[in-house]
Amino acid sequence: MTTKVKSSLSKTEAKNNKIYVFDYDVNNLIEKEARSIDECVDLKNTPSVTWINVDRVPPVGFLDKLTLGFDLHPVVIDDIFNLNQRPKVEILDDYVYLVFKMLETNGPKNKIESEQVSLVVGEKFVITFQQGIEGDTFAKVREKIRNPKSRLRSQGTDYLGYALIDSAVDGYFDILDSFSDRLEKLEEQLINEPSPRTLKEIYALKREMLHLRKAVWPLREAITIMERGESQLIKKTTRIYLRDVYDHLIQIIDTIETYREMLSGMVDIYLSSINNKMNSVMKVLTVITTIFMPLSFIAGIYGMNFKHMPELEHVWGYPFVLGVMATVALIMLLYFQRKKWL
Amino acid sequence: MTTKVKSSLSKTEAKNNKIYVFDYDVNNLIEKEARSIDECVDLKNTPSVTWINVDRVPPVGFLDKLTLGFDLHPVVIDDIFNLNQRPKVEILDDYVYLVFKMLETNGPKNKIESEQVSLVVGEKFVITFQQGIEGDTFAKVREKIRNPKSRLRSQGTDYLGYALIDSAVDGYFDILDSFSDRLEKLEEQLINEPSPRTLKEIYALKREMLHLRKAVWPLREAITIMERGESQLIKKTTRIYLRDVYDHLIQIIDTIETYREMLSGMVDIYLSSINNKMNSVMKVLTVITTIFMPLSFIAGIYGMNFKHMPELEHVWGYPFVLGVMATVALIMLLYFQRKKWL
Amino acid sequence: MTTKVKSSLSKTEAKNNKIYVFDYDVNNLIEKEARSIDECVDLKNTPSVTWINVDRVPPVGFLDKLTLGFDLHPVVIDDIFNLNQRPKVEILDDYVYLVFKMLETNGPKNKIESEQVSLVVGEKFVITFQQGIEGDTFAKVREKIRNPKSRLRSQGTDYLGYALIDSAVDGYFDILDSFSDRLEKLEEQLINEPSPRTLKEIYALKREMLHLRKAVWPLREAITIMERGESQLIKKTTRIYLRDVYDHLIQIIDTIETYREMLSGMVDIYLSSINNKMNSVMKVLTVITTIFMPLSFIAGIYGMNFKHMPELEHVWGYPFVLGVMATVALIMLLYFQRKKWL
Amino acid sequence: MTTKVKSSLSKTEAKNNKIYVFDYDVNNLIEKEARSIDECVDLKNTPSVTWINVDRVPPVGFLDKLTLGFDLHPVVIDDIFNLNQRPKVEILDDYVYLVFKMLETNGPKNKIESEQVSLVVGEKFVITFQQGIEGDTFAKVREKIRNPKSRLRSQGTDYLGYALIDSAVDGYFDILDSFSDRLEKLEEQLINEPSPRTLKEIYALKREMLHLRKAVWPLREAITIMERGESQLIKKTTRIYLRDVYDHLIQIIDTIETYREMLSGMVDIYLSSINNKMNSVMKVLTVITTIFMPLSFIAGIYGMNFKHMPELEHVWGYPFVLGVMATVALIMLLYFQRKKWL
Amino acid sequence: MTTKVKSSLSKTEAKNNKIYVFDYDVNNLIEKEARSIDECVDLKNTPSVTWINVDRVPPVGFLDKLTLGFDLHPVVIDDIFNLNQRPKVEILDDYVYLVFKMLETNGPKNKIESEQVSLVVGEKFVITFQQGIEGDTFAKVREKIRNPKSRLRSQGTDYLGYALIDSAVDGYFDILDSFSDRLEKLEEQLINEPSPRTLKEIYALKREMLHLRKAVWPLREAITIMERGESQLIKKTTRIYLRDVYDHLIQIIDTIETYREMLSGMVDIYLSSINNKMNSVMKVLTVITTIFMPLSFIAGIYGMNFKHMPELEHVWGYPFVLGVMATVALIMLLYFQRKKWL
Repeated sequence: MTTKVKSSLSKTEAKNNKIYVFDYDVNNLIEKEARSIDECVDLKNTPSVTWINVDRVPPVGFLDKLTLGFDLHPVVIDDIFNLNQRPKVEILDDYVYLVFKMLETNGPKNKIESEQVSLVVGEKFVITFQQGIEGDTFAKVREKIRNPKSRLRSQGTDYLGYALIDSAVDGYFDILDSFSDRLEKLEEQLINEPSPRTLKEIYALKREMLHLRKAVWPLREAITIMERGESQLIKKTTRIYLRDVYDHLIQIIDTIETYREMLSGMVDIYLSSINNKMNSVMKVLTVITTIFMPLSFIAGIYGMNFKHMPELEHVWGYPFVLGVMATVALIMLLYFQRKKWL
Repeated sequence: MTTKVKSSLSKTEAKNNKIYVFDYDVNNLIEKEARSIDECVDLKNTPSVTWINVDRVPPVGFLDKLTLGFDLHPVVIDDIFNLNQRPKVEILDDYVYLVFKMLETNGPKNKIESEQVSLVVGEKFVITFQQGIEGDTFAKVREKIRNPKSRLRSQGTDYLGYALIDSAVDGYFDILDSFSDRLEKLEEQLINEPSPRTLKEIYALKREMLHLRKAVWPLREAITIMERGESQLIKKTTRIYLRDVYDHLIQIIDTIETYREMLSGMVDIYLSSINNKMNSVMKVLTVITTIFMPLSFIAGIYGMNFKHMPELEHVWGYPFVLGVMATVALIMLLYFQRKKWL
Repeated sequence: MTTKVKSSLSKTEAKNNKIYVFDYDVNNLIEKEARSIDECVDLKNTPSVTWINVDRVPPVGFLDKLTLGFDLHPVVIDDIFNLNQRPKVEILDDYVYLVFKMLETNGPKNKIESEQVSLVVGEKFVITFQQGIEGDTFAKVREKIRNPKSRLRSQGTDYLGYALIDSAVDGYFDILDSFSDRLEKLEEQLINEPSPRTLKEIYALKREMLHLRKAVWPLREAITIMERGESQLIKKTTRIYLRDVYDHLIQIIDTIETYREMLSGMVDIYLSSINNKMNSVMKVLTVITTIFMPLSFIAGIYGMNFKHMPELEHVWGYPFVLGVMATVALIMLLYFQRKKWL
Repeated sequence: MTTKVKSSLSKTEAKNNKIYVFDYDVNNLIEKEARSIDECVDLKNTPSVTWINVDRVPPVGFLDKLTLGFDLHPVVIDDIFNLNQRPKVEILDDYVYLVFKMLETNGPKNKIESEQVSLVVGEKFVITFQQGIEGDTFAKVREKIRNPKSRLRSQGTDYLGYALIDSAVDGYFDILDSFSDRLEKLEEQLINEPSPRTLKEIYALKREMLHLRKAVWPLREAITIMERGESQLIKKTTRIYLRDVYDHLIQIIDTIETYREMLSGMVDIYLSSINNKMNSVMKVLTVITTIFMPLSFIAGIYGMNFKHMPELEHVWGYPFVLGVMATVALIMLLYFQRKKWL
Repeated sequence: MTTKVKSSLSKTEAKNNKIYVFDYDVNNLIEKEARSIDECVDLKNTPSVTWINVDRVPPVGFLDKLTLGFDLHPVVIDDIFNLNQRPKVEILDDYVYLVFKMLETNGPKNKIESEQVSLVVGEKFVITFQQGIEGDTFAKVREKIRNPKSRLRSQGTDYLGYALIDSAVDGYFDILDSFSDRLEKLEEQLINEPSPRTLKEIYALKREMLHLRKAVWPLREAITIMERGESQLIKKTTRIYLRDVYDHLIQIIDTIETYREMLSGMVDIYLSSINNKMNSVMKVLTVITTIFMPLSFIAGIYGMNFKHMPELEHVWGYPFVLGVMATVALIMLLYFQRKKWL
């Protein structure tokens, strides 16, 4: 459940990395898988937009080359390696560095998987580092690049950066939808058969929302910083798109807050339903006890062995006592009915 | 209950759109239903104020024409299509774009229905996009336009924009009034016959308040931005009206907060009333048990079959034991009366 | 309890208005009841300070005259008519407009009554609009004006405005005092005989505090705006007085917060006292059951009709069994005493 | 418990005031008790630092003289008289006016006593007004003045002001320490023998913390304003000392927050301990009932008077039934042991 | 548990201090233990970086020398002596003064130990004051200095300062990891065998998180101030490293918040599990009572001694009654099974 906070990629894991390169402008498109980083560095300063996607963080030597070729600051390299980074933006002279999380629900249990993405936007190149979870999260962006008529082809690196962020934010909306489904199921459960498991699922959902919130909230701040125009690399025309992403993030945060309030209400309803159940158990106990205690007492009286109990001799004694018992029981039942306990 | 978060209008729904056009100044008024968007574009730059109301979001091709005719930014078009927009304002060079929600309570269940309205205020034109829920929400504004003496006729597009927003805010006050009625009913229920249903209704009301708040809170921010005077399109004379709308929104938020606090208090009272009930059930059980257990025990003693129990032989044994029992019962009753359990 | 949020004065109510005029400087004082508004307009630009107090909002035609005579903005007029205004200030070119609430506790039930006051401070005139609740809330200010040596006589309209606000704030302190008394009574009740009524009174008090807070909080903001010196009408010498009012408002808010925390603590104490009571009921039940069940069981054994039960024949059988029973009871009692249940 | 909010000193109380004057520079020190205010006014403009301490607020006429002599603003005079002032600072042209609270725990009950101190820092004089509670709160400052080598002697009025505030803040730390002791005692009580009294003491402590917080929080703001350098009277060299006081105040607020969180946790633990107790009471009841009800039932069967019950005739009937009973009891006990109720 | 808030080092404790000096540039490294402070002062203005680490706060006279030698302000000296300082930064003309906490988990109980570190960064020297807890917290930094190829050797005093802070922040991450482990254990406990001890451990963990938060939160503020560039001593190239530290602190705060929310959820789950247990105890009680009370009553009837009870004479009377009893018991059992109480 809880994980080590500041993990970093072990070196054995990092073997099967894959470098995938796009190089495009309005008219041309080169798309290839690169073997070595040297192939990429040449594309760096061509007037066309170059997008280098590194699928698993590569071994250190590999990264060094990339670093040298693209002038990345040592702190940025550290951040790329540290896979528990909080989403943030770093505006540097030659590029903008952004870390964020891609979230996906996988499997039948709707477990959220999180992948850290590092995004470096230079003037003529974009580099992305993924953790290489299955499922190609940037597929939609690739499709758009391949389409010669898409807006992406005629825009610069900042618009490509926006498109990549936007595809992550779209993923957040999918998560919200899965939350919404689970909320509905929980509500049904709460009405039909509340159990301690319901409570545990409520808290599990709450915790996953915290997860989403931790991805969204700092990204919102980062987008604000990018949109504010501190970097020359982000053109004014792209800012309205960033503002749109910002609005979507706010909307996600709002929805999370609403869901959280709903879950809090569900906890209260669950707790009060336990109390109601206990109340009804108590009522059964009380009704039974109240009816049979007096009756048993009457039977007890006539079970006493006194020599001189005239009632015992009487022919109608037994039926009369049975009648008294029936009357007492009836009175009790009426009393409980008036109290609405039955 | 919970809905998909980022829905967008399906294309089949979007057929029966209706375009309704007003074109007016102090002296003249043209009012007509337009068949095609081309009829509207010509009115765009006339010195008179043109208001184009599109009742359902039109098919895409249709919209494209409108877009071309009025220079709307692609992001704005996207926002108009996305029907789960958070209220917001976008100040652009040639127009101000505002999204907000019209809320209405319909039906016997006081269910809140929400309609997204997109408002584009240009220099000489205003375009509104409604979702086309039944009930003409802008009827009052239309009435005012038709009245040649109304202030609306002598003012520009920014005042028309204000009037449209103001009619939405008036709708919020109606919702608040319906909330107030339901609160009063819930309070009565809580005093007379609290039931788990009461609790569920409290949370339903709480959730609907969240709904209203989600419409009001961001609109407040949007109004602040408009009123701050970043756009030339919003004249200084109109700002005092926007400030008035702002004050109304704050008042709504305040009232929601008060209602929420009241509802929280009602939850506490409900929970403590369950506990009180359980307490009184327990008291009945305890009183009955405490009275009859000793009596049954006495009866049990004289039901024993020992040969040598002198009391059993005594003529007054039976009446004496009955007397002892009555005394024990009386003492118990007095004890409970002093403890205020009866 | 809950009231319609945006009420406005019905026209029939508004008949019996009264216009009361003061016109003074250091040396002279005119005090009269005006029949028509025309009498007042002439005083407007005299060098002396003119205070026009309108006791009930007058019929519309009446108001129109006043408006024309004193150049009030239509939005201000609307606000004066709308009797559910949130306290606020509007700084206009020729005057400052302030709305606030006068609060008074009336009757034996300490019910808070609220009256909306609109205050217009011009250069040489002050106009106030009251709702005309009984009890002359501005009596102290009138007394001061009548006293030729009071500071009020030598100061301008802004100081008169301050004096009027200050008398409202003094009223808030009276309310706080009545809250303090009720809190003390509630605390006593909670210790001596907590009942569901106590809980309801706690929440009633909480709600009334919300009421006071809704009057004080926005007034605080309004005073800040006035004190900040945006208007020429409020002289620098008056600002220190406004700052004093501001400090008093903060002090009221602080006290309300303290009271609210105390009330929350009282709710917790109440709820735990219910639980304690239930606990003591359960203990009585358990003690009685635990003592008498084994005794009854022993009696039951010797009530069995087996032919061969040697104890039954023994002469000392009965006294011995009685001794066993007494021993069992004693052991139980000692056990409960050690557990501190007795 | 709760006190009238806006009290002011009654005139009868104000008789026994005492004026104590220090006048010093690096080389000289005059220390005397003044009879009349006229003695003090002369010292006002000497180059040496003059500290006038007024121990109880003096009668009005007395104060007037002081006021005239030192040019105090009427609002400041009002604030000195109003003994329920919120801590605040007022920066005026010729002096800085600061109100704050001295807190002391007195008596065996650790009751906090609060004394309002008004501090006026002019260029060459400092005036302090105390409420005259027993215990000389400024004793340490006096000691330092009397010591010719202390830093105080070579500094100006602003440093004296700082020293006086600092001695109040030191008093707050003493209060925190007494809180810490009481917290520890409460925690012990909670573990060893939680009782409703524990809960009441928790809330009493909570309330006293509110008290301290109300003294500290606004003082923090006041110090910020003083340190910000709006007044010429507070020299740059003194600001680092004020910043130090500020840091101490923040530390106090932090500690209060921690204590409050601890108290909240203690309330939860208390409530859950009540529930646990009730649980254990219920278990005793259930164990006893579950064991003896079946046994009594078996005894009841063989207490029936049917003619034809072959078991009754059997010689081993009685011992056999006793054996059955023992077996039933044993099974029940094992069951409860497995459920960990014993 | 709770400690005196404003403690200061007693003089007896302060004996065994140790002064450890590094003096280095890219090419040279001097490392020695100093006997007296005079040895250090000479190194102060050499172009190489001098790091003086004082392990226990030295006796006063000792400190005076250091102070004179390095021009430390008296307030700074006071702060170094006061061992309950809140983390903070003080930007002075000749140096930057920073106080922060080193935290370590020691022993089997994971008890957090806190050590206050004072850091003075001058132009050519860095002085650190530690409390001298066992375990050399700056060991890693020393290693780096000894390594001639490390970045540290080529950088100035500001980078050394950063490295020291960073090693403290790394320690915070270790604490977070230990928290994470304890959280996991608590969760397991909560599922398998919740006990009052679980609750107490939850609150203990909560309190220790408060501790960590009190160390991290103000340090975050201090780092912001340093990074903002008010001091010339912190070069622009070092700021990106400080920003990185800042991001780590934010991440720690975020994680603490998440853990706190998880703990709150665990309290709710614990409380509801107590209620569930009580519920199941009640059910056992009710089932047993409801089954055996009617049966005992039937046995009681035929234990009565009436002369005329025809059933008693009948040969099949006894088996018939046993059959009736079995039927009643069966019906009850079925009823409880349908109610899911079994």
